[in-house]
Amino acid sequence: MKNQIIKTNASIICGASVVGHKEHDGPIGHLFDIYDENDRFKQKTWEKSENQMQKLAFENALRKARLQVCDIDALFAGDLLNQCIGSAYGLLDFDIPYFGLYGACSTIIEGIILASSLISGGVFKKCAAVTSSHFCSAEQQYRTPLEYGGQRSPTAQWTVTGSGAFIVGEETESKVRITAALPGIVIDKGVNDAANMGAAMAPAAIDTLIRFFEQSETSPEDYDAIFTGDLGYEGSIILKELMAVEGYDMSINYEDCGNIIFDRERQDVHSGGSGCGCSAVVLASYILPKIQSGEYKKVLMIGTGAMMSPSSLKQGLSIPAIAHLIMLEHAEVQNGNI
Amino acid sequence: MKNQIIKTNASIICGASVVGHKEHDGPIGHLFDIYDENDRFKQKTWEKSENQMQKLAFENALRKARLQVCDIDALFAGDLLNQCIGSAYGLLDFDIPYFGLYGACSTIIEGIILASSLISGGVFKKCAAVTSSHFCSAEQQYRTPLEYGGQRSPTAQWTVTGSGAFIVGEETESKVRITAALPGIVIDKGVNDAANMGAAMAPAAIDTLIRFFEQSETSPEDYDAIFTGDLGYEGSIILKELMAVEGYDMSINYEDCGNIIFDRERQDVHSGGSGCGCSAVVLASYILPKIQSGEYKKVLMIGTGAMMSPSSLKQGLSIPAIAHLIMLEHAEVQNGNI
Repeated sequence: MKNQIIKTNASIICGASVVGHKEHDGPIGHLFDIYDENDRFKQKTWEKSENQMQKLAFENALRKARLQVCDIDALFAGDLLNQCIGSAYGLLDFDIPYFGLYGACSTIIEGIILASSLISGGVFKKCAAVTSSHFCSAEQQYRTPLEYGGQRSPTAQWTVTGSGAFIVGEETESKVRITAALPGIVIDKGVNDAANMGAAMAPAAIDTLIRFFEQSETSPEDYDAIFTGDLGYEGSIILKELMAVEGYDMSINYEDCGNIIFDRERQDVHSGGSGCGCSAVVLASYILPKIQSGEYKKVLMIGTGAMMSPSSLKQGLSIPAIAHLIMLEHAEVQNGNI
Repeated sequence: MKNQIIKTNASIICGASVVGHKEHDGPIGHLFDIYDENDRFKQKTWEKSENQMQKLAFENALRKARLQVCDIDALFAGDLLNQCIGSAYGLLDFDIPYFGLYGACSTIIEGIILASSLISGGVFKKCAAVTSSHFCSAEQQYRTPLEYGGQRSPTAQWTVTGSGAFIVGEETESKVRITAALPGIVIDKGVNDAANMGAAMAPAAIDTLIRFFEQSETSPEDYDAIFTGDLGYEGSIILKELMAVEGYDMSINYEDCGNIIFDRERQDVHSGGSGCGCSAVVLASYILPKIQSGEYKKVLMIGTGAMMSPSSLKQGLSIPAIAHLIMLEHAEVQNGNI
């Protein structure tokens, strides 16, 4: 059974997104549910702003699903901050069993895989997966204080200020079915440039994608769309080139959420968006509605995460990465309340 | 179904423990599988030493279970280091789907709950849960550099240098059955003293324990033993006092792993042991064998975690905590290979 596709019978009842100013100003800015003009969400620290984003995203997801806090059996949550305080404090108000995750930027897909697998196995009925990243809290923790104004390299990505929350339920509760999942394996191909996460994460995405195509006996053209989380401009080019070498043409229907969320030229984001929030808000606001409406019948969504820390890089280690995959399908028949 | 006990049909096939010098020198030091006299495990940094401990613990667990890497469907792992690099790098050599967790010191029980729930639901057949903490890597990240020689307050705990790994399998594979699980809710009672984690975590343990007793209609005397992960001397006194107020007598069969692992007086550890490794190595080496042999028929094990970060404390926030519970039972009949 090792490394095998998990057949899931679950659905995404709804997704909610909360973003900052720059994301709202981007090409899909009009699709997000909530945004704050100064990225502070009325809080005094960037970390508290991130907490508030998670709270707003989860509350909004509950509202959209017409559910109460007491309807949710478990929360799966995580973020990029040390000790995942974005989630622990952000979701503190909700009296729900809590599973803290750390999958770096792949966290939302890790959470959806666990939620949908446990629902498929009859353990839970409804779960939520929540994640966030904030440009300012990430910048000061991973790189330099904002005031420093450090130059960014061309391959560097821009951490998305955003939080996404998803309510995952049983199969018949929505038109957006989660029909399969493939958890990732930690892969380290020796990339040690912290300003080029796309290159570090692309091999993990390729590993998961190829395992999925081989086991499912499908190829890219069997899907309406294939998305990676935050490989960005650099990483998605690497993915396309290396997948072509392996015999998979990704040029037609593949895109990265980091390329979708920002206008690379106009918004000066170099290699595109990144962060836990990147894939989460694009999935919630751009991808899910297209599956809901039937525009996409079959989609692959791959969360990508770089699992290093500033300390491990300073100690000369390279960047391990992971990529978790879910298959989402449009279902015509629907008995749920959405 | 909210906040309810999960009925699980799984078993702990085996546990393995790797510790440092001080743990080996403690009251149960002779029970641990592997130890290193200078806590370095032949590595050049404390973080790499922690990686090596996880690797050794997992390899040893596989060996004890007479299993290969390819027999394990999923790894559930996490630790205290920023971005959980103890696990991401420590388990990098193993080609196994990886779910990164962050539950602070409750991580091993969080991992065992997820593994046993997914096995009970038929999603996986065999999983591993792995965690670690290292006194030196934790000290320099959370407190002060070792060379600083900071004074410790009486309520402060000593981070255990240890890694525990568990192989979780289907019901009939071992005499140690996981028959129930109750995931924790994040609780913040306003404690903001980073040198008194026991006080911060005790309310979370009490919340989970009382929910468990009420739902299962049992009380402490129905169990041969009840263990918390790392409340230490201070926290376990608080737990006993507050549980007594609620009508539960914890004085007979309750102990904390942080009190078991060190000799508080002789080893100068103030309020006892703490860290992800604390509950993991005590469970693997002290508790599991007693269930295996039938000395304990029914045990509650509660992983306790403090979910704050040094940043959140500096910003004036209090310490949120969580406690995850599993019920372990001795089964006479066994069809497995151990």
